[in-house]
Amino acid sequence: MSGNSFGQRFRITTAGESHGQGNLVIVDGCPPGLELQLDDLRQDLARRRPGQSRLTTQRKEADEPEILSGVFEGKTTGTPIAILIRNQDQRSKDYSQIKDVFRPGHADFTYWSKYGLRDYRGGGRSSARETVARVAAGAIARKFLDSKGIHVLGWVDRVGDIQAQITDSNLVTLESVESNPVRCPDPVAAEKMAELIDQVRREKNSIGGRCTLVVQHIPAGLGEPVFDRLKADLAKAIMSIPAVTAFEIGSGVEAGSMRGTEHNDPFRLENGQVVTTSNHHGGMLGGISSGMPLVIRATIKPTSSLAQEQLTVNQHGEETTIITKGRHDPCLLPRFVPVGEAMVLVCLADHYLRWMERHHNPD
Amino acid sequence: MSGNSFGQRFRITTAGESHGQGNLVIVDGCPPGLELQLDDLRQDLARRRPGQSRLTTQRKEADEPEILSGVFEGKTTGTPIAILIRNQDQRSKDYSQIKDVFRPGHADFTYWSKYGLRDYRGGGRSSARETVARVAAGAIARKFLDSKGIHVLGWVDRVGDIQAQITDSNLVTLESVESNPVRCPDPVAAEKMAELIDQVRREKNSIGGRCTLVVQHIPAGLGEPVFDRLKADLAKAIMSIPAVTAFEIGSGVEAGSMRGTEHNDPFRLENGQVVTTSNHHGGMLGGISSGMPLVIRATIKPTSSLAQEQLTVNQHGEETTIITKGRHDPCLLPRFVPVGEAMVLVCLADHYLRWMERHHNPD
Amino acid sequence: MSGNSFGQRFRITTAGESHGQGNLVIVDGCPPGLELQLDDLRQDLARRRPGQSRLTTQRKEADEPEILSGVFEGKTTGTPIAILIRNQDQRSKDYSQIKDVFRPGHADFTYWSKYGLRDYRGGGRSSARETVARVAAGAIARKFLDSKGIHVLGWVDRVGDIQAQITDSNLVTLESVESNPVRCPDPVAAEKMAELIDQVRREKNSIGGRCTLVVQHIPAGLGEPVFDRLKADLAKAIMSIPAVTAFEIGSGVEAGSMRGTEHNDPFRLENGQVVTTSNHHGGMLGGISSGMPLVIRATIKPTSSLAQEQLTVNQHGEETTIITKGRHDPCLLPRFVPVGEAMVLVCLADHYLRWMERHHNPD
Amino acid sequence: MSGNSFGQRFRITTAGESHGQGNLVIVDGCPPGLELQLDDLRQDLARRRPGQSRLTTQRKEADEPEILSGVFEGKTTGTPIAILIRNQDQRSKDYSQIKDVFRPGHADFTYWSKYGLRDYRGGGRSSARETVARVAAGAIARKFLDSKGIHVLGWVDRVGDIQAQITDSNLVTLESVESNPVRCPDPVAAEKMAELIDQVRREKNSIGGRCTLVVQHIPAGLGEPVFDRLKADLAKAIMSIPAVTAFEIGSGVEAGSMRGTEHNDPFRLENGQVVTTSNHHGGMLGGISSGMPLVIRATIKPTSSLAQEQLTVNQHGEETTIITKGRHDPCLLPRFVPVGEAMVLVCLADHYLRWMERHHNPD
Repeated sequence: MSGNSFGQRFRITTAGESHGQGNLVIVDGCPPGLELQLDDLRQDLARRRPGQSRLTTQRKEADEPEILSGVFEGKTTGTPIAILIRNQDQRSKDYSQIKDVFRPGHADFTYWSKYGLRDYRGGGRSSARETVARVAAGAIARKFLDSKGIHVLGWVDRVGDIQAQITDSNLVTLESVESNPVRCPDPVAAEKMAELIDQVRREKNSIGGRCTLVVQHIPAGLGEPVFDRLKADLAKAIMSIPAVTAFEIGSGVEAGSMRGTEHNDPFRLENGQVVTTSNHHGGMLGGISSGMPLVIRATIKPTSSLAQEQLTVNQHGEETTIITKGRHDPCLLPRFVPVGEAMVLVCLADHYLRWMERHHNPD
Repeated sequence: MSGNSFGQRFRITTAGESHGQGNLVIVDGCPPGLELQLDDLRQDLARRRPGQSRLTTQRKEADEPEILSGVFEGKTTGTPIAILIRNQDQRSKDYSQIKDVFRPGHADFTYWSKYGLRDYRGGGRSSARETVARVAAGAIARKFLDSKGIHVLGWVDRVGDIQAQITDSNLVTLESVESNPVRCPDPVAAEKMAELIDQVRREKNSIGGRCTLVVQHIPAGLGEPVFDRLKADLAKAIMSIPAVTAFEIGSGVEAGSMRGTEHNDPFRLENGQVVTTSNHHGGMLGGISSGMPLVIRATIKPTSSLAQEQLTVNQHGEETTIITKGRHDPCLLPRFVPVGEAMVLVCLADHYLRWMERHHNPD
Repeated sequence: MSGNSFGQRFRITTAGESHGQGNLVIVDGCPPGLELQLDDLRQDLARRRPGQSRLTTQRKEADEPEILSGVFEGKTTGTPIAILIRNQDQRSKDYSQIKDVFRPGHADFTYWSKYGLRDYRGGGRSSARETVARVAAGAIARKFLDSKGIHVLGWVDRVGDIQAQITDSNLVTLESVESNPVRCPDPVAAEKMAELIDQVRREKNSIGGRCTLVVQHIPAGLGEPVFDRLKADLAKAIMSIPAVTAFEIGSGVEAGSMRGTEHNDPFRLENGQVVTTSNHHGGMLGGISSGMPLVIRATIKPTSSLAQEQLTVNQHGEETTIITKGRHDPCLLPRFVPVGEAMVLVCLADHYLRWMERHHNPD
Repeated sequence: MSGNSFGQRFRITTAGESHGQGNLVIVDGCPPGLELQLDDLRQDLARRRPGQSRLTTQRKEADEPEILSGVFEGKTTGTPIAILIRNQDQRSKDYSQIKDVFRPGHADFTYWSKYGLRDYRGGGRSSARETVARVAAGAIARKFLDSKGIHVLGWVDRVGDIQAQITDSNLVTLESVESNPVRCPDPVAAEKMAELIDQVRREKNSIGGRCTLVVQHIPAGLGEPVFDRLKADLAKAIMSIPAVTAFEIGSGVEAGSMRGTEHNDPFRLENGQVVTTSNHHGGMLGGISSGMPLVIRATIKPTSSLAQEQLTVNQHGEETTIITKGRHDPCLLPRFVPVGEAMVLVCLADHYLRWMERHHNPD
């Protein structure tokens, strides 16, 4: 137990369930003096909010945050910042029929095995609803990293077998990502993805995909070998999100097919700075940032909740079938983007502070 | 700084460099009363040892461990166990020529950026030499998990484009893995892999690949949502190893192309136990073990050290070239297997203890 | 930063200021299946509440808790429990005059030095108001420990030079403690203490004192040497409370004047159990509980806020004087008792879970 | 379990027993570029070494440290520093007679209760021998803090009822402390203390006492409320040392008898700096350093090992008697001084790094 905190210096602790009073996060370690408004939080929360388009779940949540502590006269004070987002559209009745049944691909069985009881209302804490607290924390991390010139941007690069064509990932903008409901900056691919998602929805099925996350203007030196390598902590950050099945940096799984001469990125000088001529290493060497952009990829499985009959077992040890009726995203990818960004932001804010410790230390 | 510990209950802390006095690990949290002999450590260390075949580096290390504490009359006492493995075949002179030059694909530049100085002898602590301490810790975790009936086994399933054909990963044995120097249980593929590795070695090049790690007989209930999900901590464990570029569970990156009906694993009963009819989920749901075998995959990049000329930069801000002369594995995969196993073992020992806390708690 | 969590398995994280929206705590690691009602929280909160008698501050707070998560159908679920206690009687205007001035004995100067800004409304997070969240967490720990038969009770044993006479601290009851507003189970001393407190109040002064905390029926074996000794973690728990200046176990400071023959507690058998004939060791040997009652003492300094003129300095670097007008306890002791109990409860719940890990481990 | 690490940024992990191979420490988080020689370690180790005078145990240990990692070309590299001190004068036979018997005042019974077995050779890990690793770590912390101008000095201020008279604790020098074997800077008291210790030794008894620890030139701002208050972490650091029964800051237990007007330290200006005219607060307000000297006091109980008959119980549940024959300090105080300093040093190095994080953060 007690696995609900992430980070060491910029440390977040979350609580809350899908159908309880709400979800909340305490951010401990945010530096003082940072301007923080509700609007800073609302912006990222809106990108994660359900019901944005027909491609996402129709559950309606205002997701209005309340800042309970840590901000005084519009600025962070250095004390813990608590954010509460109350649940609104809970409709517990939607879930009463699955009270005793383990939904395939869901955490119903494992929570019941672990805790001996479970909050069956919409998955309780195993629901992706808990990520709303992560996004609120990420918005605070974003404010901090913005002040250091570091920017994090994610997008959908694959849905099923449809792969976006991105010539230069360093040129992708937030505007191009947000220009369509899929959050794919390649407009041609985005349209095909939207069609595919709509099709699987009509077929009462779901589809997986992949998200790319890029970090620009990160200084060299972040990451703490040997275990708290930057890639290791980013992996934990991303793999802690529901439904993620793979994590890659730089060339990722393709590195397994490459030769050293292909994969090694030669160093060269650019305006007196050491850079690499390519970025197969994804911005990290030896677990420490190299100054090149970080490139991370997360694969997300198809939504487990399906509006068609599936074989399963119930709590009484009987085989049975289930049709999940609730309101679900046929593809998790579009709403994953702000969640993936949030975890990268939190992880980087943490490592930035760890790096500060050292960087300004010797006189 | 202070990123050299991993785990919470079964906690390992390592120290040591490639060409210093040696490498050591303190294992804090190993339960008392466990029989532990030097031979338990030697067995796993031998599998990681350099110089096993022409496919691996010719550096010679006896890798003889010394138990400095925590064992009394042949049993663990519950106090911290310290293991020291002294370095022997150091040949510091091999590295003098690269003292000022940043090797492409290596951590020379990032360590220098981070710390302002670096131990240039063989990469210092960024060298894969540090994994010897992880393997010693893993051997202790293995003894503990063995006593619970939990078994971890890894093998090479891909080198370059050569993919092993494994009909049922649950039937792979340690003997079949160890039957060839590549550590691939498919003998046909193993031979092709060996040829490929030998070829890239002759070409003064290197090659990447992928390792599969499977955990058998793990109880349902391990893992601590939302951040210390089992998959998240395993991801951190594996991604903390040098040269790993991707981490996958279950269907991994392929899940991105799948539909929900394909990916969901239906529950059914088998001898009164809840099992799934397939294992796309890789043994974890909601970040908690389901009782099905854990299936993990790690992609490893090609060795960065190449005995051919590469473009780079030196510490004085000049562009230059480098040929890495030392003794290096042309493919990291065969020796990665015991290291990957070690990190999975340590991570599972830790989560097993966290689970005990709860499992035996309510009266 | 990020010093707002305590404990490892039963882990509490608090947030909130004296005059902000409220105070809250997330309890992560509470075992599932524990019955938890609002009344369980209200009981301890009422003992800490201001305005209980003329001996305490007249600030009025209902201190009504709200359970935001982690409880379902009246039972804990094993997921994090969040409790929010909103502030009510804030009267920020009381503090406007001290906006720029550092109150002697307070944290105004140190917060300003550390963070570069401060929430001057009633001390912000340095106010003892934050302990309301600790008491809520302690009430949950109490429910857990009650289920294991472990009981924690505190009382005031000294105010100024008035020392309570307690023949056998094992016989003190909650009723005798709560029978008077001072919370001293010696009725004669209690009356003198009440008079003294009333006198210093009239003199616009304040007075210090000491609190004894006793834990009954704790099993032998709790505590994790060498650094997480039970006495060390209890010391941190108690010394983390505002105004505490000394921590003692067993004979405490008197042990410094004793000879070994006086201080050593001989072992003997009682109903087949190993016990000691005296308890100078305060229930801990080598940092591990011995099975004898834990005996802890905490000294609390006199309240720093005084309604009389004191010399000080302001933020502009000028010497000045201050009279603190707000509503303050002339003696912190009576309201300290539930706070001291709460921290002991939280610390023991944490160590109980750490002990479970081991205790039920070997087969 | 896993309680053998202390600190977060400057983190020490120790291992080793009284009569095993040796004791060791890994220091993780020491900044790079610090000059570190074996002589830096030897100096503090010599002050802790047994056999210094007739007042201390006659056990002979060279206590020669070996630096196993983390130092290259005479400087720390930022990677973990491992120090090993091998045991030499072990004489296990001294302890064979007490193999089955629980020594009163010792951890024999509690270790046996906790772990189900114990290393009976001289107490194993419960022996004060383990503090040798703490002193080695403290010597490294001292080098780091020296470079920041922060100095830590301890001395014996009380043995039994003999109290040293120190007019101004800020004027005590290392030379005056080391000028006599008791480590008391008041030469008159020191002589009386030496006589008393010699007397209790002849009487086969032992005596307790108190140590004062002062930190000079610490900046304002160290400490992380609300739980990682500087006073709370120092309390844990000191109470984690064997035999310590009380921890005090500033006025300590005397604060319980004081009125607010006596205890509050007025602020005033001195050369433009905010200082206090007295130091009852012991250099910490709200758990954060104020810039005034830290004043800490630790009470140490009389040595538990006595060369005279004591009543006790053995592992077979029989009442019996014991005479502890080994070689023991009749008073722990003189050798406690360097151990107390070491834990204060480690704790401050840790908090200094935590403070850096923030202090240099905002641009």
